Amino acid sequence: MDAWLPRAGLLFDELERVSADAGGVTRDAYGAREQAACDVIAEAARELDLEVSHDAAGNLYAVLPGEDRSAPALAVGSHLDSVPRGGNYDGAAGIVAGLAAASALRRLGAPLARDVMIIGLRGEESPWFGTAYLGSRLALGLLPLEQLDELRRFDTGRSLAEHMMDLGLDVAALRRGEPRLSPANLAAYFELHIEQGPVLEREAIPVAVATALRGNARYPFARCLGAYAHSAAVPREDRSDAVLAAAELVMRLDGFWQSIEASGGGDAVFTVGKFFTDADLHAMTKVPGAVDFTLNFGSTRQADLDAFRNQAEASAEEIGKRRRVRFELGQAVGTGPVALDAALRKALAEACAACGQRDFEMPTVGHDAAVFTKAGIPAAMILVRNAHGSHNADEAMDLADFGDGCKVLAAALAAGARGGD
Amino acid sequence: MDAWLPRAGLLFDELERVSADAGGVTRDAYGAREQAACDVIAEAARELDLEVSHDAAGNLYAVLPGEDRSAPALAVGSHLDSVPRGGNYDGAAGIVAGLAAASALRRLGAPLARDVMIIGLRGEESPWFGTAYLGSRLALGLLPLEQLDELRRFDTGRSLAEHMMDLGLDVAALRRGEPRLSPANLAAYFELHIEQGPVLEREAIPVAVATALRGNARYPFARCLGAYAHSAAVPREDRSDAVLAAAELVMRLDGFWQSIEASGGGDAVFTVGKFFTDADLHAMTKVPGAVDFTLNFGSTRQADLDAFRNQAEASAEEIGKRRRVRFELGQAVGTGPVALDAALRKALAEACAACGQRDFEMPTVGHDAAVFTKAGIPAAMILVRNAHGSHNADEAMDLADFGDGCKVLAAALAAGARGGD
Repeated sequence: MDAWLPRAGLLFDELERVSADAGGVTRDAYGAREQAACDVIAEAARELDLEVSHDAAGNLYAVLPGEDRSAPALAVGSHLDSVPRGGNYDGAAGIVAGLAAASALRRLGAPLARDVMIIGLRGEESPWFGTAYLGSRLALGLLPLEQLDELRRFDTGRSLAEHMMDLGLDVAALRRGEPRLSPANLAAYFELHIEQGPVLEREAIPVAVATALRGNARYPFARCLGAYAHSAAVPREDRSDAVLAAAELVMRLDGFWQSIEASGGGDAVFTVGKFFTDADLHAMTKVPGAVDFTLNFGSTRQADLDAFRNQAEASAEEIGKRRRVRFELGQAVGTGPVALDAALRKALAEACAACGQRDFEMPTVGHDAAVFTKAGIPAAMILVRNAHGSHNADEAMDLADFGDGCKVLAAALAAGARGGD
Repeated sequence: MDAWLPRAGLLFDELERVSADAGGVTRDAYGAREQAACDVIAEAARELDLEVSHDAAGNLYAVLPGEDRSAPALAVGSHLDSVPRGGNYDGAAGIVAGLAAASALRRLGAPLARDVMIIGLRGEESPWFGTAYLGSRLALGLLPLEQLDELRRFDTGRSLAEHMMDLGLDVAALRRGEPRLSPANLAAYFELHIEQGPVLEREAIPVAVATALRGNARYPFARCLGAYAHSAAVPREDRSDAVLAAAELVMRLDGFWQSIEASGGGDAVFTVGKFFTDADLHAMTKVPGAVDFTLNFGSTRQADLDAFRNQAEASAEEIGKRRRVRFELGQAVGTGPVALDAALRKALAEACAACGQRDFEMPTVGHDAAVFTKAGIPAAMILVRNAHGSHNADEAMDLADFGDGCKVLAAALAAGARGGD
């Protein structure tokens, strides 16, 4: 591991160089710079003498062969793309970690019962085509194929199929629906990813094992409609004040969040990311007649997500009636929480112990691991400490922390690859 | 009164015609359409055989002579201008009411001990030059004269003095500082104005007497500064959420307002007219790092205004510390409340009784009457029922309600003009 770590550092530098953008890196899903990153990774995999191939969806595979080539493989993967002007580590770290682990396993010299497969996935980030996990869903046969033509990239306006053809991918094969991956050929999926929050920094530890991927209940286009009126001439009982009503709703939901935390749902999160009066109509001297806002609740417990929606809708009804406004929360959207595989989590915890790492578990956000779980492939994740969050140019993962994560990954793979099913 | 009411209706039509704009009427302060309205009023005053004149600031005077021409006069006035795309009655109603009352007093035939002076004031609305009450302040010597050159109209960028010269006004006389009005020549100032709220509609009465002009305590540029972060990856204790903190402040101040109402300050008002996250930076999936908002509290009691400022600043401090955000409320601005003259209010109440109107008192918002009070001239106001608020094209004063208001005004003038000082 440590032997290959300097090479990993150079690989991150090279990835940054081929995808540098004004303020951060941009690896556009199914575009030139995601492809450039893919090529850099493929070249490094060939250096390690891994078997490099691609599927029709453009995902990259680099295989370290095991003794039984027909046994379901152990996969290690993450995504090649980034958000526009994102950071260098979100996604790429998980793929480079796979190469580092393969290098370590080979150096270890112990025979592998089964293949270890490093996967570089395409198009995980949702900004590009308005939806996430394109590469993993295509590899697992979980993307409705009409979306190849329906999804359009936000910046080019061109379809996913058109972007694929630009890259010389075999769209016709995709349309025939022959996915590369399934539970028949994959025994497990591991993903290493930078932590996108400050928890590991606060805890002062380099590595954690993820318990689950948070689901969410969201209202992206909520509104509160009251009536504009003279701020000084209209008394309380004649007002339909949209800001005070929406602020009360928000505070009510903040209280709900606190009650969930108090009841043991300590990893729930609640965010009102947007809350705005109408710039064309608002004024200091007008009772506000409308507010647009978003509600975004996340939890690893489905029951909490359901309770959040009930609480939001019941509170909007009650507050709206009392304050003479109308809430239009709009359609709730969201995804269910995904529990990661218990046996793999245990394997990672044991690997942490073997590597001298504190056993620390925490939930995380949506990743490709959710798609593998949905396809029936056991999945687990390693989180690596990272400063300044993700999706920005200031991501700051220490290479030593990355090395610690790779050691845990390699130890878990060695145990799994040796130990049979 | 009733005899001249149809002429008042035609006069309103004529005012609307000369100042019609796309969506409402626009009588631009010290501009062509305010001048056109002034000319229409002057012509109607000449029809009534009143003595028409102007002062150096362009204010219009129409005098119904009394027996003692040197006794301090009774004035009736309001403003000629409107807000951009405002309504036809805000301002104009008070001047037309003066003409109607003069017509009624003349028809009454009783001798007047003193002059009754109708005043059409310039530039009352603040949008034009960023400050209110220009005409009344110039007439009473209360505008610092350097502002003739410093104030610039928002739409033309030209100075007040330049606009005055366009209209042929005697700016040199203004600079010499010889105000037309003072307590020496005015015994009282009455102003009739449409109600700008829904109270009289709700009470189902056409006319009220104003008790006071509300003062206000305002924070026009308040901010709450937190830190943007990943909505799903950052737990509560690591967040600095600007929206939740500002919503809590707003709810705290809503509670303060309720406590003021419960303690007898039933005419206080509280408005958060603007409350907005940054459109360039906010997202449903980001903890919001900043909110801009306004706080605007109105009351007829100075102690309540002071308490509001204390409450806002103490709450911002406490909430900011607890929620790890920084509030920058900015400089508090505002005006003190103005109590209207008790003797004149009593005279108006008696006039209401004499006219068969219910005696109903309520506070109102800032008007030129505040400037007359400040200059030491007793002032009082009559409010007339009006649908749809003011400062918009939908102002809807019923001509019959206006007639009721004019009767009360004429009765009060008759009593005051007959009764000596």
